Amino acid sequence: MAKYQAPLKDSRFILNEVFGAEDEWAGMSATEEVNAELAEAILEEGARVTQAELLPINLSGDAEGARFEGGKVTTPKGFKEAYRVLAEGGWMGLGGNPEYGGQGMPKMLTVAFEEMLYATNTSFALYPALNAGACLAMDSHAPEAVKRMFLPRMYAGDWLGTMCLTEPHCGTDLGMIRTRAEPLEDNDEVLDLPRYRITGTKIWITGGEHDMVENIVHLVLAKLPDAPEGTRGISLFLVSKHLLDGNGEPAEANAVSCGSIEHKMGIKGSATCVMNFDGAEGVLIGEPHQGLAAMFTMMNYERLSIGLQGLGLGEVAYQSAMDFAAERLQSRAPKGAVAPQKPADPILVHPDVRRMALEARTWNETGRAFAVLVGQQLDRVKYHADSEVKAAADDLVQFLTPVAKALLTDRGFDATVMAQQLYGGNGYCVEWGAEQYVRDARIAMIYEGTNGIQAMDLVGRKLCRNRGAYVSRFAMLVRDELSAQNDDGDTQCFAEACQQELERLERVSEQLIARAQDNPDELGAAASDFLNLTGLCVYSYLWLRMARAAARGLKEKGACGEGFYRRKLALGNYFVSRILPRAVALEAQVAAGSASLMAFSLEDFTPEQ
Amino acid sequence: MAKYQAPLKDSRFILNEVFGAEDEWAGMSATEEVNAELAEAILEEGARVTQAELLPINLSGDAEGARFEGGKVTTPKGFKEAYRVLAEGGWMGLGGNPEYGGQGMPKMLTVAFEEMLYATNTSFALYPALNAGACLAMDSHAPEAVKRMFLPRMYAGDWLGTMCLTEPHCGTDLGMIRTRAEPLEDNDEVLDLPRYRITGTKIWITGGEHDMVENIVHLVLAKLPDAPEGTRGISLFLVSKHLLDGNGEPAEANAVSCGSIEHKMGIKGSATCVMNFDGAEGVLIGEPHQGLAAMFTMMNYERLSIGLQGLGLGEVAYQSAMDFAAERLQSRAPKGAVAPQKPADPILVHPDVRRMALEARTWNETGRAFAVLVGQQLDRVKYHADSEVKAAADDLVQFLTPVAKALLTDRGFDATVMAQQLYGGNGYCVEWGAEQYVRDARIAMIYEGTNGIQAMDLVGRKLCRNRGAYVSRFAMLVRDELSAQNDDGDTQCFAEACQQELERLERVSEQLIARAQDNPDELGAAASDFLNLTGLCVYSYLWLRMARAAARGLKEKGACGEGFYRRKLALGNYFVSRILPRAVALEAQVAAGSASLMAFSLEDFTPEQ
Repeated sequence: MAKYQAPLKDSRFILNEVFGAEDEWAGMSATEEVNAELAEAILEEGARVTQAELLPINLSGDAEGARFEGGKVTTPKGFKEAYRVLAEGGWMGLGGNPEYGGQGMPKMLTVAFEEMLYATNTSFALYPALNAGACLAMDSHAPEAVKRMFLPRMYAGDWLGTMCLTEPHCGTDLGMIRTRAEPLEDNDEVLDLPRYRITGTKIWITGGEHDMVENIVHLVLAKLPDAPEGTRGISLFLVSKHLLDGNGEPAEANAVSCGSIEHKMGIKGSATCVMNFDGAEGVLIGEPHQGLAAMFTMMNYERLSIGLQGLGLGEVAYQSAMDFAAERLQSRAPKGAVAPQKPADPILVHPDVRRMALEARTWNETGRAFAVLVGQQLDRVKYHADSEVKAAADDLVQFLTPVAKALLTDRGFDATVMAQQLYGGNGYCVEWGAEQYVRDARIAMIYEGTNGIQAMDLVGRKLCRNRGAYVSRFAMLVRDELSAQNDDGDTQCFAEACQQELERLERVSEQLIARAQDNPDELGAAASDFLNLTGLCVYSYLWLRMARAAARGLKEKGACGEGFYRRKLALGNYFVSRILPRAVALEAQVAAGSASLMAFSLEDFTPEQ
Repeated sequence: MAKYQAPLKDSRFILNEVFGAEDEWAGMSATEEVNAELAEAILEEGARVTQAELLPINLSGDAEGARFEGGKVTTPKGFKEAYRVLAEGGWMGLGGNPEYGGQGMPKMLTVAFEEMLYATNTSFALYPALNAGACLAMDSHAPEAVKRMFLPRMYAGDWLGTMCLTEPHCGTDLGMIRTRAEPLEDNDEVLDLPRYRITGTKIWITGGEHDMVENIVHLVLAKLPDAPEGTRGISLFLVSKHLLDGNGEPAEANAVSCGSIEHKMGIKGSATCVMNFDGAEGVLIGEPHQGLAAMFTMMNYERLSIGLQGLGLGEVAYQSAMDFAAERLQSRAPKGAVAPQKPADPILVHPDVRRMALEARTWNETGRAFAVLVGQQLDRVKYHADSEVKAAADDLVQFLTPVAKALLTDRGFDATVMAQQLYGGNGYCVEWGAEQYVRDARIAMIYEGTNGIQAMDLVGRKLCRNRGAYVSRFAMLVRDELSAQNDDGDTQCFAEACQQELERLERVSEQLIARAQDNPDELGAAASDFLNLTGLCVYSYLWLRMARAAARGLKEKGACGEGFYRRKLALGNYFVSRILPRAVALEAQVAAGSASLMAFSLEDFTPEQ
C-alpha cells in the first residue's frame, strides 16, 4: 500500500547543511526575509497538506481517471475538494511574484514542495505545475494590464493556466505549427490591448479543460499572418476560457473548447485535452514572433518541475516498497537466519534486494540535492544583484537543466521499476500501487521535451555552440568545492571520485567538440551517453558536498543526528563503488562515435520478413 | 498502430546459417525427420496463424481484459475463437511427446513460434505456455495412466494445464507452502491410482479458470501429512477441474474453484486466478516429496518461454515503432535535409533516434539467437544419444537458462521502453499500442522466478556450488568457436571482443568464487551484475557466430541476401562498439563487493522524516 512521509529531514540537510540556504537567501533582497524557520514551516505544512489531501485520492484517481462527456471534463472524486484546500492555503502562488499576490518563495525551497505534490499525487500535481509555468511566462512577458488582471487570480488558485504548444503533426519541431492568429481591428475592452482571433487545434494540453476552477487561462503558440517560416515566426497569446467583464470576472464563453481527452498509460487523473480554438479571442504576450523566447523563460522551470515528478515518484515508490519489504518474509539470510523465530527472514537481508533498494534510494537522495542546486542557480539568475554571480548562475542553469530533467526522470522511472520489482508479483497487482508509480513516471521521460531532446539540447546548444564554455563554468564550481578543504577518512574517496569524473567530463567534452567540427552526426550519436556521463559527474560533485556535510555533522553533532549522517555516508559509498563505474562505459560509448549508427540507411530500419 | 511480421528471415538465418539446424536434427533419432523444409513450413504457418488470429485481438483484449463473475472467468472477445483455430491447427502439441499425440518438434525450432505467440498477443500466449509446461512435467513424471488419459487431450488443446505453486505468503520460498494433500483410502476409479484430497489456496494461477476449454488440468504443489519441513517436503498433484467418467470425459465438478482474478498492470487478457482447493480430488505426479524436482523438469523450459515473452514484445514494439518512425517528420538531419520536399525529415535521420532503434533491435536479434542456443541444448539433453554430448548440454542449460530468462526479459522490457520513447507523446496514448507492450513486458521480469532469483540461482547453484565447472563448460564452447577459423576484415573485431569477454568472465568468476568462500554475502551482492556480465559474454559469443555466418553469406551469396548480411554485420558493430563497453562497468561493480550493501542495518532502510 502507499506509504509516504515527505523526506523533510533530507531536505533540511540539503538546504541547511549542504547548501547553506539561509546565507544564500540573506544575500538577495528578494529572498532576504526567508530564513530557516520560515522554510521549515513551509516544508512541514506542505508535507501535512499533501499527505492529508492528495495521497488518499491517488490510487482512486488512477482507477477512476478524468472523464470526458459533452465537452466537459470531470476530475476524479476528491480532486476538486483537495484543490480548494490547497488553493486556500496559498500553495498555488508559492513561488509567484509578490507584486501580484504571489508568495515569492525561492525555487531552492519550492522544489521540495513540488516533490511532495508529485509524490502524493502526480495526476493532481500537474494542474498546479502547469499553472506555475504559465504564471512565470506571463510575469516575464505579459503587458502590465494582463498581469494585473490575471496573475492575482492564478496565484490565488481561482483560475488555472495551461500551455498550448503541441499540434498533431508537430511536438518537438514547433516551427511547423499551423495555429493562426489574426489581428482584429478593435482593442480588447477590458484590457485595452489589441485583440487577435486564434484558430487551430492543440493536443496534449494538460488541464485544458476541467471542473476544478471557474476559468482556465490558455497560453497558446500561434502564427501571425506576416510570420516568418519556422520557429522565428511563432507568437504567444493568452486565451481566456471565459471572456472577462468590466469587473474582471469571467463572463461569456470564448470560442475555445475541449474536443476529447487522451486515454493514457498513466497520469489518468490528469486531463490531457485536445483543444480547439475556433476564432477564440486572445491578446499577445510578449513581442510578435518572439513566442518561443517567451516560452523559454519558463522552460527551465518546467523542465526542473518535470524532473521533480521523476524524483517524487521515485521517493514514494521507494518508501512504499520499504514498507512492504519490512513485513515480507522469504528465505534466509546468506550468513544464517536473522529472525530465527519467524518462518523466514525479511527480504531486506538479501544483498540483491538491498541492491534494488539502494539503487532507488541513491537516485532519490542525489536527485533531491541536484534539484536544489538547479533551484539555487535559477534563484540567482532571477534575484541576484551581482551581475557576475547572475551570469555564472545563468550558465549553470543552461548547462544543468537538460541534465536534471532527463536524469531525474530516467532515474526516477528506474527507481519506480526497482521498487516495483521488490514486491515480486504483488508489484504487478493494481491494489499495491507500485505499478501506478511506474506508469505515472513513464510520461516524464517523454513530455516537456523528450529526454532525447534534452540530450540534443545539451550537446548542441549547451556544449558545442559555445565550445565548452558552460562546461568550464561548471568545472570552476566543482574545483571551488574540491579546493575548499582537504579530505581524509570518510570523505577522501568522494574527493577523488569527483576529481576523476570532472577530468573525464572535460576530456570527453573536448574530444566531442573537436569531432563534431568535422561531422555533425557525432553530436547526436553521443548525446544521450554524454548527458548521462555529465549527470554522473554532477552527482559525484553533489556527493562530495553531501559527504563533507555529513562528516561535519558527525563531528559537530549536527541537527540531523548521528544515524542520519552515517547512513548518508554509507549511501555515498554505494554511489561511488557501485554506480559511478558506469561512467567508464559511457566514456567508451561516446568515444565509439556515430559510425555504427550511420551505417544504416533509412530503409535499413524497415523490419524484413 | 501495431505492426508485426514474424521475423522469419532472421529465424532462418539463425537456424540454418548460424546453428546448422538441419545437421543438428539429423544427429538425433527423435528429430531426424525434421529438416529445413518442414521447419520453414512450420514457421510460415505459425507466422500466418498468429498474425491473422492473435494480433487483431491484442489491443482490444487489453482494453476489455479477462472478467470474473460468479466464479466464472470470461476471456476477452475473440480469444475463444482464436484459440479454437490454433488448437485445431495442432499448435498446442507442437513440442509434445509423439507417443501421446504431440508433434515432437525440437525446442530449437519451437522457440520461434513461441516468440510469435508472445509478440502478437502475450495475454493469449500465456494459456498455451502454461499448458506446455504442465505437459512437460507430466510427460516426465506422471504415471502412465495419467499420461494416456490427459496428454492427448492437452496436446489437442481440448483441455489446458496450469501450474499452481504460489500462495499468499510465499512465492520465491516455496518451502513455506501450506496446501495439504491427504491420502484417501480408495483409488481413483478411472485411473486406478491412489487418490488424495487437496486443500489450500493458490494465487497468481495463470489460466486457473476461463471459458476457452471444457476442462482445466491443475498441477498443484502440496504437502503430504508426513512431509519433512521446507522444500524437501513438497509433492506434486494433478487436480482436474472436472472429474473424469469411465470414458475419460469430464463429468462432475471437482472441489476446485476460482475465488477472484487479479487486477494487473498488464497481460489483462490473461486470467490470473486465486484458486481454492477445498478437498479437491487429485493424484500424485512423481514421487512423494519430490514435487520440486518434478517442477524443475519443466522449469528451464518455462524460464526460456518467459524469456521469449520479453523477446516477442521487444520485437513487436520495435517493428511498430519503425512503422511510426518512417512516417513521422520532425526537424532536419544534422548534415542537412534528406527530404527537402517535405516540411521536415523522418525522425530516423537523427542519430539519437537511431540509437534507441538500434538498442532495441540489438537486444531482439541477439536474444533470438540466444533462445535458439538454449533450445539446442535443451534438445540435446532430451534427445541426444551420446552421454557426453548430453552432459555438456545439461551443464550449458543449467548455466545459461537463468541468464536467458533474466536477460531476455530485462532487455525485452528495455526494448519496449525504447520503442515507446520513439513515438514521443503518442507512445503514452493507449491507441498506438506501444504502452501496452511496456506493461505486458514488465511482468516477465517478475514471474517464473524474479530476475533477482535468476541471478541468485546463477551465482549460487550454477557458479559457486560446483566451483565454476559450468563456466568452464561454457568457456570450452566459446573457445571451440574462437579456434574454428581465423578472422580478418569484417569479423576480426568480433573474435577479439569475444576473447576479451570470455577472459573477463573467467577472471570475474574466479574472483567471486574465492571471495564467497569467506563471505556468503558476496554472492548476492554480485548476482545481478554478474548475470548481466555473463549475458554480455554470451552475446559477444553469439555475435562472433552471427558475424562469421553473415560474412560467409556475403562471400557465398547466401539465401538471406546481401542486404541482410550487411545489416547483420552493421548491427553487430553497434553491439560491440556501443553496448559491450558496459561489461567494464559491470566488472567494477562486481569487484566492489558487498560492503556498501551490508553497511546498512535492516532499520536503516526505513524512510525517516
